[in-house]
Amino acid sequence: MIDKYKSEHLYEWMIEIRRKLHRHPELAFEEIETAKVLMGQLTKLGIPYDYAGPGHAVIGKLSGKNAAAPVVALRADMDALPGTENTNLPFASFIQGKMHACGHDAHMTMVLGAAALLKTSPPPCHVLFIFQPAEEKGGGARVVLESGALQSVSAIFGGHVTHHYGVGEIMVADGVITAQSDRFKIHVKGKGGHGARPHEATDAIVITGLLITALQTLVSREINPVYPAVVTIGTVHAGSAPNVIAEEAILEGSIRSTLPEVREHIHAGLRRMAKAIGELHNAKIDIDITQGYPPVVNTTRESQIAHRAAEKVVGRTGLMTLDHPSMGSEDFSYYLQKIPGCYVRFGARRHEHEYIPLHSPEFDINEEVLKVGAAFFDEVVRETVQDYLS
Amino acid sequence: MIDKYKSEHLYEWMIEIRRKLHRHPELAFEEIETAKVLMGQLTKLGIPYDYAGPGHAVIGKLSGKNAAAPVVALRADMDALPGTENTNLPFASFIQGKMHACGHDAHMTMVLGAAALLKTSPPPCHVLFIFQPAEEKGGGARVVLESGALQSVSAIFGGHVTHHYGVGEIMVADGVITAQSDRFKIHVKGKGGHGARPHEATDAIVITGLLITALQTLVSREINPVYPAVVTIGTVHAGSAPNVIAEEAILEGSIRSTLPEVREHIHAGLRRMAKAIGELHNAKIDIDITQGYPPVVNTTRESQIAHRAAEKVVGRTGLMTLDHPSMGSEDFSYYLQKIPGCYVRFGARRHEHEYIPLHSPEFDINEEVLKVGAAFFDEVVRETVQDYLS
Amino acid sequence: MIDKYKSEHLYEWMIEIRRKLHRHPELAFEEIETAKVLMGQLTKLGIPYDYAGPGHAVIGKLSGKNAAAPVVALRADMDALPGTENTNLPFASFIQGKMHACGHDAHMTMVLGAAALLKTSPPPCHVLFIFQPAEEKGGGARVVLESGALQSVSAIFGGHVTHHYGVGEIMVADGVITAQSDRFKIHVKGKGGHGARPHEATDAIVITGLLITALQTLVSREINPVYPAVVTIGTVHAGSAPNVIAEEAILEGSIRSTLPEVREHIHAGLRRMAKAIGELHNAKIDIDITQGYPPVVNTTRESQIAHRAAEKVVGRTGLMTLDHPSMGSEDFSYYLQKIPGCYVRFGARRHEHEYIPLHSPEFDINEEVLKVGAAFFDEVVRETVQDYLS
Amino acid sequence: MIDKYKSEHLYEWMIEIRRKLHRHPELAFEEIETAKVLMGQLTKLGIPYDYAGPGHAVIGKLSGKNAAAPVVALRADMDALPGTENTNLPFASFIQGKMHACGHDAHMTMVLGAAALLKTSPPPCHVLFIFQPAEEKGGGARVVLESGALQSVSAIFGGHVTHHYGVGEIMVADGVITAQSDRFKIHVKGKGGHGARPHEATDAIVITGLLITALQTLVSREINPVYPAVVTIGTVHAGSAPNVIAEEAILEGSIRSTLPEVREHIHAGLRRMAKAIGELHNAKIDIDITQGYPPVVNTTRESQIAHRAAEKVVGRTGLMTLDHPSMGSEDFSYYLQKIPGCYVRFGARRHEHEYIPLHSPEFDINEEVLKVGAAFFDEVVRETVQDYLS
Repeated sequence: MIDKYKSEHLYEWMIEIRRKLHRHPELAFEEIETAKVLMGQLTKLGIPYDYAGPGHAVIGKLSGKNAAAPVVALRADMDALPGTENTNLPFASFIQGKMHACGHDAHMTMVLGAAALLKTSPPPCHVLFIFQPAEEKGGGARVVLESGALQSVSAIFGGHVTHHYGVGEIMVADGVITAQSDRFKIHVKGKGGHGARPHEATDAIVITGLLITALQTLVSREINPVYPAVVTIGTVHAGSAPNVIAEEAILEGSIRSTLPEVREHIHAGLRRMAKAIGELHNAKIDIDITQGYPPVVNTTRESQIAHRAAEKVVGRTGLMTLDHPSMGSEDFSYYLQKIPGCYVRFGARRHEHEYIPLHSPEFDINEEVLKVGAAFFDEVVRETVQDYLS
Repeated sequence: MIDKYKSEHLYEWMIEIRRKLHRHPELAFEEIETAKVLMGQLTKLGIPYDYAGPGHAVIGKLSGKNAAAPVVALRADMDALPGTENTNLPFASFIQGKMHACGHDAHMTMVLGAAALLKTSPPPCHVLFIFQPAEEKGGGARVVLESGALQSVSAIFGGHVTHHYGVGEIMVADGVITAQSDRFKIHVKGKGGHGARPHEATDAIVITGLLITALQTLVSREINPVYPAVVTIGTVHAGSAPNVIAEEAILEGSIRSTLPEVREHIHAGLRRMAKAIGELHNAKIDIDITQGYPPVVNTTRESQIAHRAAEKVVGRTGLMTLDHPSMGSEDFSYYLQKIPGCYVRFGARRHEHEYIPLHSPEFDINEEVLKVGAAFFDEVVRETVQDYLS
Repeated sequence: MIDKYKSEHLYEWMIEIRRKLHRHPELAFEEIETAKVLMGQLTKLGIPYDYAGPGHAVIGKLSGKNAAAPVVALRADMDALPGTENTNLPFASFIQGKMHACGHDAHMTMVLGAAALLKTSPPPCHVLFIFQPAEEKGGGARVVLESGALQSVSAIFGGHVTHHYGVGEIMVADGVITAQSDRFKIHVKGKGGHGARPHEATDAIVITGLLITALQTLVSREINPVYPAVVTIGTVHAGSAPNVIAEEAILEGSIRSTLPEVREHIHAGLRRMAKAIGELHNAKIDIDITQGYPPVVNTTRESQIAHRAAEKVVGRTGLMTLDHPSMGSEDFSYYLQKIPGCYVRFGARRHEHEYIPLHSPEFDINEEVLKVGAAFFDEVVRETVQDYLS
Repeated sequence: MIDKYKSEHLYEWMIEIRRKLHRHPELAFEEIETAKVLMGQLTKLGIPYDYAGPGHAVIGKLSGKNAAAPVVALRADMDALPGTENTNLPFASFIQGKMHACGHDAHMTMVLGAAALLKTSPPPCHVLFIFQPAEEKGGGARVVLESGALQSVSAIFGGHVTHHYGVGEIMVADGVITAQSDRFKIHVKGKGGHGARPHEATDAIVITGLLITALQTLVSREINPVYPAVVTIGTVHAGSAPNVIAEEAILEGSIRSTLPEVREHIHAGLRRMAKAIGELHNAKIDIDITQGYPPVVNTTRESQIAHRAAEKVVGRTGLMTLDHPSMGSEDFSYYLQKIPGCYVRFGARRHEHEYIPLHSPEFDINEEVLKVGAAFFDEVVRETVQDYLS
């Protein structure tokens, strides 16, 4: 890493902020205390901000002198997750049943770190520091977009910590990097009856068993094997007594795909199969599919800018490529539907062979990643200016 | 019906008692008010009773003069069912969520009616009038048996109202007339995970789908098709979120069979299949099977006695035969494991083509059946004496 | 057994005939040599016969003097089965790949034995000895009926050897004693393709797997558990190479049922499920169901006659009752659709715990059953006369 | 295309050869006439060859003068496929049931074309023209390798026509470009029986249905969705009569994967599931997995060489990249396990929206691709020399 990011003072400040945020996790659209911490730090840095918008978005604004320069946005997500932390960290969650298990505490800290660096040595462009609520649930990104706050933005950048890489590694890729996520709800309507007289009933549980089983062929036989596709049924609830035939069953699930044609095939296949399994048993099966976050699709120019910025920070050996899109999803995708940009990943495991998945009660990061993230966000602003003005 | 049962006075008295009992349904082992009504009527009839035993059993005792005569027991069940009555009867249940949907109100009334008839014209034998709690749940019959109250009983008789036959029809059959009922609980233990990463999890719902589906072959291919067998899975509960792979699933179900070898095969088959489906998916599936009521097996001699008694009451044309055992179950079976006896069915539908299943919120009877039942119980005592003493 | 059947001479003669027939098995509608043996023996007995009819039916005729007497027919089936005998008997099949594995050799011998007895001491009625071809396949009984040869027949009797009972036991029952048998053929029409590109094909084998699996619920959940029902898929043939997706699959199967409503439900269910599983996978599934032999339904009067005849031969202790209909089928049913009659079973196992199923390559009988069968057929003629003339 | 390949004379000669080969398709290891045609043309060109090896491999040899130069091999496959051509071409297959449906006729012609070009203007290196038998079946590549003929080879190149691209397009990619292909055979051992008595049998067809169904979860739930995996069951054969329960079933199938860990998981999963489905039904299921062709893994240096050669022939716009490995397989992979090299694809569709899959009875090419292929093979030899000597 180039020398200017090696300031111990900056690092200690970031660690303090990150731990404070970690200790007070708040769920989607409830990020009140989190917003206060962020506003406090922006004030200390002398960076003005807006906090009028819906949700608890905090948007810091650094003004540049060159009117021709691009407006660059750096985005961090604010919300924590339900779940009980199991890390034994001295700064572990104080809030029972809530936890920063997805690293958003680190993301906010990195963007604040970048704000400090940019304030110290300002680029000629406007910079927006977007602290966005509700990434995990509810699509806070849409709320920010709809507020109009990003209308003048030329390019937007964001990133996520991960144990897939080590500290000092940044993954930058062009194009699709996460999956489309959709949800569905299935309602199997049979006919209840006495458990000893199956011929007088239409057993919603037997129908459900066959439906779950038949749906496997959607992924195993109908989708091109080189395209990722997942159909997960996450919940099944049916029946109220062991000796009474269940009248109905409710199933809920999620779909992941990276291509529109795969997604459309799965939606149509789910509808076709639900209908046919109903007819198989003289029952009726309703299915309702709701759209989730779209895939994150990085734009080519901004990916190249991010690539150069990352190389400045971690060198050529620290640059990671993407083998295949993640099946996860991320509401940064909404920004990229409107604004050019790039979303990256920051290696954050604590030792070489560690792998703790995101959302796990044991999740933690190597705090050295905070320096990498702050440096990347600083450099990416400067590279954008250079690219756009050249 | 022979003349002596045509007393309008007796009939009106029975209707009054039945409606009173119907209005105050009480669940298994809570039959306090019911017991009070019964004791009140026995007192009026001048018949002594015991109410010291466990549960709320009331046992009326009529003493006979001939020491060589058999001791004959007549049994009625006392408990009502959970469920909200939907009959619009003027004497419909006063108790929200409880209902005499299985005709036990009628059974108690019939035995009281027989007590009145036998008291008026006493046979030379001892007669026990057994009002037993908790037939629907908990096996009150076992409680009565364990109290020792039936130790001297030579033969026991009972019966059930049904819409399978009309009023003036009694079904009497030798041998097996109801099924064995067992229950089971299955615990599928997979490994939870992110809905987008099925390869890192062991999906309890996919396993459950295949388990439900595979279990169908137990009845369809492993049991001799001429022997009745039912395996019903009544409940399935798994998972808590659409995009999280379910860690475990809980299934509950019931088994019906009429032959010990069928029952044993199903128990072993359930265990084998649960184990194998677990191994199929690298999961663990536990199954716990609990024994229910055994089949009701009428003894030959007492069936012949009951046959003659029924013929006296309803004539040859009113005698019904059994095509096949009912898949239902009944705790009268416990008595028959210790004491010879016969369990019959009394036709009770209100018009020719009516069929309302037992346990239905709409269940009701033609009250004329009360006369038939009282007459049958009266005659069966006299026939038993004659048969045993001849 | 009453004395007159104990003739060692008759027995030795029957053994000789049975072994001769056993040695020369002939398949359905090919019973040329078999017919010759039968005609030779009838000629020896001085009994005239017809052999002009279609198939190789031989019908012997004994004339009675009383014009008012009933005409009684005794029927034996003639054909053998494909399969290689594996009995090590000195008189085992000489014909490779054919075998009397269903005891028809014994049935013919019994009827010939009865002919000898009846010829010796003639009853006052006409008697027809019907040796019918093609019971196993093709319904030879229909051919005989259509020939008009049985137009004057008052009552018809037949029987079958079995290891379910011992020698000296005859099972006689009124009503339904065998199942209805139907066959079906299913044609799954998918779309072939490269084994590596399932998404471009419609895999007939995956569809077939789910179809077989789903069909189990027809028996396990849709048919009243107290009614016997069997759906067997006996053959599946699909595909020609391991790495080519199968375009189509052909399945053949059979259905057994004892009640018309069960049979109709299964037929409709097969059609419904074939259609729905096709729609599940965007394929087409055709099903063709062909009717097989109807159930054997003994008539009440003739069952009572057979009951008395059997009691004379084997005594009260030798009379067996039917617990439940056999799931097997038998073309004697065609006669009973037109003519009153009764079909019985003769115990034929060689020692107490032997059970060799019919159609097995190891099947053999205790030849003592020949005496029992001949005696029964002799007595049933005499009992019929007595019953009809009284 | 650069001028020197535009010779009409060369093109006409290639068309003539290609059509002659197309007219006389020969299956794997039977390529006698094909070898004669090739040897005749090599003789005409004045290029010596070997035809002593096993199979019908023909290896032409052009000697170069520079001992330091690399030895470069160009490979074409010779065999046709079973199947009846359905193209209406004037030079369609003369041989009933055999067809050049995989373009090997074109591949041989291209390498001969390159031989003509290289003979005319010889490079300083040795060049081997490898005409290899039995690519479709049997792995002729291994036979050639085992013969030792390629021991001195420095780099090897090959290619395949395809409708995925148009004429004037060449796909060149580094790394894995095809799948690993394996085959398996499953033997389900049940217990035969009478179709009416399933409880006495172990129905191999019901087991097979569930096995096919359960195996779908291997791909749908156990493999990382971003890695391609296919399990195809191509054949199922079971049973011989509709009313006899099948004793056994034989299934054959193929597996495709691109990563060793996916392949190993599928192999282990098939074994685990076969065992468990056997235990589910008290049957035994054997599975035998045989290894097929490994993936084609192009080496980096030779891919770069091929890339430059292709660019010379079709320009930058004609260079295609690989989105994902093909699920197909190819025995060129055996060469690449021993020798550096690169396998490419030549666009060959006849008009813009045509897509006829390989192995289809309608498959044909735009013969202009012959020029492209010959030119590529010529250039790739020269590029290799340049690269290795620089």
